[in-house]
Amino acid sequence: MKLIKTQPLKGFRDFLPEEAITRDFLITKIKIVFEQFGFDPIETPALESAETLLGKYGKEADKLIYLFNDRGGRKIGLKYDQTVPLARLIAFYQNLPKPFKRYQIQPVWRAENPQKGRFREFIQCDIDIVGEKNLIAEAEIIVCALETAKTIGFTEITMIINDRKIFSNLEKTVIISLDKLPKIGEEGVIKELIGKGLTETEAQKLIKKIKNTKPTKNLINLFLLLKNYGLKEGKDFKFEPILARGLDYYTGPIFELISKDYLAGSLGGGGRYDHLIGQFTGKNQPAVGFAFGFDRLLEAAKEQNLIPQQSTKTKVLVTIFSNKLLNQSINIAQKLRKEGINTEIYLDSEKKLDKQLKYADRKRIPYVIIIGEKEVKRKVIRIKNMKTGEQKEISQEEIINFQNLISNY
Amino acid sequence: MKLIKTQPLKGFRDFLPEEAITRDFLITKIKIVFEQFGFDPIETPALESAETLLGKYGKEADKLIYLFNDRGGRKIGLKYDQTVPLARLIAFYQNLPKPFKRYQIQPVWRAENPQKGRFREFIQCDIDIVGEKNLIAEAEIIVCALETAKTIGFTEITMIINDRKIFSNLEKTVIISLDKLPKIGEEGVIKELIGKGLTETEAQKLIKKIKNTKPTKNLINLFLLLKNYGLKEGKDFKFEPILARGLDYYTGPIFELISKDYLAGSLGGGGRYDHLIGQFTGKNQPAVGFAFGFDRLLEAAKEQNLIPQQSTKTKVLVTIFSNKLLNQSINIAQKLRKEGINTEIYLDSEKKLDKQLKYADRKRIPYVIIIGEKEVKRKVIRIKNMKTGEQKEISQEEIINFQNLISNY
Repeated sequence: MKLIKTQPLKGFRDFLPEEAITRDFLITKIKIVFEQFGFDPIETPALESAETLLGKYGKEADKLIYLFNDRGGRKIGLKYDQTVPLARLIAFYQNLPKPFKRYQIQPVWRAENPQKGRFREFIQCDIDIVGEKNLIAEAEIIVCALETAKTIGFTEITMIINDRKIFSNLEKTVIISLDKLPKIGEEGVIKELIGKGLTETEAQKLIKKIKNTKPTKNLINLFLLLKNYGLKEGKDFKFEPILARGLDYYTGPIFELISKDYLAGSLGGGGRYDHLIGQFTGKNQPAVGFAFGFDRLLEAAKEQNLIPQQSTKTKVLVTIFSNKLLNQSINIAQKLRKEGINTEIYLDSEKKLDKQLKYADRKRIPYVIIIGEKEVKRKVIRIKNMKTGEQKEISQEEIINFQNLISNY
Repeated sequence: MKLIKTQPLKGFRDFLPEEAITRDFLITKIKIVFEQFGFDPIETPALESAETLLGKYGKEADKLIYLFNDRGGRKIGLKYDQTVPLARLIAFYQNLPKPFKRYQIQPVWRAENPQKGRFREFIQCDIDIVGEKNLIAEAEIIVCALETAKTIGFTEITMIINDRKIFSNLEKTVIISLDKLPKIGEEGVIKELIGKGLTETEAQKLIKKIKNTKPTKNLINLFLLLKNYGLKEGKDFKFEPILARGLDYYTGPIFELISKDYLAGSLGGGGRYDHLIGQFTGKNQPAVGFAFGFDRLLEAAKEQNLIPQQSTKTKVLVTIFSNKLLNQSINIAQKLRKEGINTEIYLDSEKKLDKQLKYADRKRIPYVIIIGEKEVKRKVIRIKNMKTGEQKEISQEEIINFQNLISNY
């Protein structure tokens, strides 16, 4: 028999329990803060028409979209981000109350060359406000993003902010090069700009000019607002004239969340994009948003030990002493479950107790329950703490107090 | 400007806040019960190699897989269910502790002709136990599935059970036809069987024979076990000799969860599949599982009013009385959020209070906070219950008790 390859496709990942539990933990934290700021969840499909996806992000990004023909010959693709699907959705459901505030936590796909920290499938966590041109919208987005990161436990974080209008008379390809300043340095950018037709002097001048740019009036007002929210300039947020952000659709303030303790890249970014939705409706609709890159956020949080390690959600394994006593074990397991205790019952009544304990140990289940013949006769059950090895006897009735029993044990 | 079409692709769905909140509510309930039974979460990618996907489900199913070539020319596809990716994963991570119990709640894709209740993208909620041939595994899966449905609030539910071995000397295409008995009736199935080469008499005889089949010894043992779990035969579970389940990979007991109050189809189904994993490893590995069809479960739960309707997660809208008093509103909103109250602040300080209240009304936000000049002078804030119209004044310090204040108001 010819065997089938078993690893996931390149750039894609399986998440085993320990990792899936960690991811779920982080997502839950993020959702709580998003909802505290008045964002409601929405979901959009994985697939969109190619027409919806193409030409919104810029030429370089378009190359990274998974495109194909479905069985009906329609050109479709996997979504590249959540912003363009949001724009389509806003155009379709014209009666949504505005401003429309939503969050969206779903996977997106990019046909990238996989490399460290870059995947072809990854989760984005987005918040957006559609239908509001007032700067309070920017402020809310920025404060919510910062608060989310703080709730996760990050301390050394700063939102760097710029205004895309600063670049309004520059060509897109030049902006893309300038965006690389923190990554490839001045020399690298100058080299790229020369490749794009500038002379060396022009390139140097351009970079110098941009570095010396002062914040726009709009940004000054935004900064005042942020201070009203209790944020400190220079610590919580900072003007950063070289911040460019690559995507085509930004039109106003742009921002990125960076951490002093995590230098692999920003934890997320966003900005104002007042013209994107108009491509679907014919009528411009102001909008501003922010997206966390979930993988980076998770990696940074792990590096700083902000996430408790847990290899299973199961609290207790109920062993089976013998086939004859199987019902006793089923009974105890069912009672524990009724009390909301995550309980596994060992599945093979023929295996020795030793093997059963070893299984609990390998899975790192914290408690084991043993009900042997002696225990049944005396109407008790034995609880073993797998970490300390300590054992304890309780009466069968006490099982409904299991949560309290183990809390100080 | 040529506008882009804005509806989602045929067979795909957007979920606006009210629907997304409902779905999230149901998923949370399901996860709690899955974890109570000792299942841990895992995730696998949306895309798999075509080799992994094809030939596992049967010919009819293969036609429904979204297949395409990626930019590197690899033949890949969107996953059709979670069972085959699980089998691949089990084969890849050979050191996982066995039995391996996992749940998986993710979307799958099928290139179906969309019709009422059939979509091209939908969520499946799976539980599986891999590496255990003992019938306790079947029992745990069945009890967990029933308990999940009961926790959601379903009462009139029954797990119908059969043994795939009953069909072991029948051809696959015949099984597929028999599986349609509840849907198209005896006459319809006879017609199909005739199309597949049987004479009318043979077809009638076959159906009669199957209807009169007695449970296998294995099933009798399973039923005994289920009774030990407190389940009642005839109510909670029932032998159903005509249950066939279409998919190719089942090898032992098979089951489907049906509801007397929901006749559009089963709420979920599963069974034992001992040979699937062997296609990846070369060595058979026993396995048994169950998958809820999330959409049906949700539809049935809605029909029976088992899900509270909630159009927003936001509890309170803080209005802005005037630009001058904006900071007061920001301050109150931030305090509420610190207390864990989901709070929206109105985003435009120029809009009349009237308009702001109307917005809260349209979004069905239950409470509104008003801080006008009079209120500021007297250091109070006003809370309006949007449902009753009632208003209440509290001191600014009392805001940290907001949750208690509204609980009896």
